Amino acid sequence: MSAPIGFYFDFSSPYGFVASEKIEALAAKHGRSVDWHPILLGVAFRETGAMPLTEIPLKGDYARRDMARSAKFHGVAGFRMPSRFPIATQAAARIVLWLKSRDPVLAATVVHALYRGFFRDDIDISNPDTASAIAAGCGADAAATRAAIDDPAVKDALKSANAQAIAAGVFGSPFIVVDGEPFWGVDRLDQVDRWLATGGW
Amino acid sequence: MSAPIGFYFDFSSPYGFVASEKIEALAAKHGRSVDWHPILLGVAFRETGAMPLTEIPLKGDYARRDMARSAKFHGVAGFRMPSRFPIATQAAARIVLWLKSRDPVLAATVVHALYRGFFRDDIDISNPDTASAIAAGCGADAAATRAAIDDPAVKDALKSANAQAIAAGVFGSPFIVVDGEPFWGVDRLDQVDRWLATGGW
Repeated sequence: MSAPIGFYFDFSSPYGFVASEKIEALAAKHGRSVDWHPILLGVAFRETGAMPLTEIPLKGDYARRDMARSAKFHGVAGFRMPSRFPIATQAAARIVLWLKSRDPVLAATVVHALYRGFFRDDIDISNPDTASAIAAGCGADAAATRAAIDDPAVKDALKSANAQAIAAGVFGSPFIVVDGEPFWGVDRLDQVDRWLATGGW
Repeated sequence: MSAPIGFYFDFSSPYGFVASEKIEALAAKHGRSVDWHPILLGVAFRETGAMPLTEIPLKGDYARRDMARSAKFHGVAGFRMPSRFPIATQAAARIVLWLKSRDPVLAATVVHALYRGFFRDDIDISNPDTASAIAAGCGADAAATRAAIDDPAVKDALKSANAQAIAAGVFGSPFIVVDGEPFWGVDRLDQVDRWLATGGW
């Protein structure tokens, strides 16, 4: 099996959610796996001067319409904009980062559970107790997961992960890296598919 | 034949150029024509706080790579980033706007000639004499075209067109409107295609 696909995402990113529902099947089609990289987009936004799409004049109205339309276009059912948006995603990101080093398969399961909790079931995963409960529902140790969110080592690991992502050129979500080639946005899945099939063009 | 597809674009937009090479065939496939709307993106950028992609930290490097890659992905040959970029596009936009009211078919031909001049042949179409010469090469009256660029009525018409575009929610290039439904970006051509086929989803 070739190198995994790097999938960088923020848990508050609607397009990241849609792509998260598609990337594993796309990777598997080409004999690849997915390396999940939760990041805090706010850190990259300080570099690029960006802000959440939905808060920008003109773009905001379009974005809300396009997010729902794109979810359906990609066959991702049940998408709805959360009533509280955007949210802080440190808790969710730390849980996944901590789990990844212990049980990568469980970590991937928890990525989906957290993302679906937020973008399908309108659960506020910015709350550490709520995010931990979702992870525990997937089989993670409840107390250890909750403790990990406040663990200075895990906090440092997320800071390092953010710095590494920015150093690698990541500035958005989803951001997909295939053998060093960067693709930004759920609307690049078709290019990712062709790149995996052909090795570039 | 149903209503034409609205195609809003700035002549300095690489993704606009790529989409301009695809939109007529896509429209024709669904029995539609294209209504070309040259705009000045800078006016919309003042509303959204946006700036040219290539000038943004992190995003700029990615954008240059993605523009060339996306042109090839969409089968648009010969794309190259102009040596001077971005450019002012008033002259080109005024020519097209002026021609549209006189000879829409010629106006469409001139859109392609100007866009290809800039993004294939590295010709600086911000120069009024150069832009006029390209239009004249397509069959437009040389002296009248050159005069139109400085005609106060044509200047006002472009200002109105920009204001109308912003009022209609346009903030980027390409920006495609199908029966009132807005699509931003060359990466929405697949959604435009399905929308035209199905009337929505």
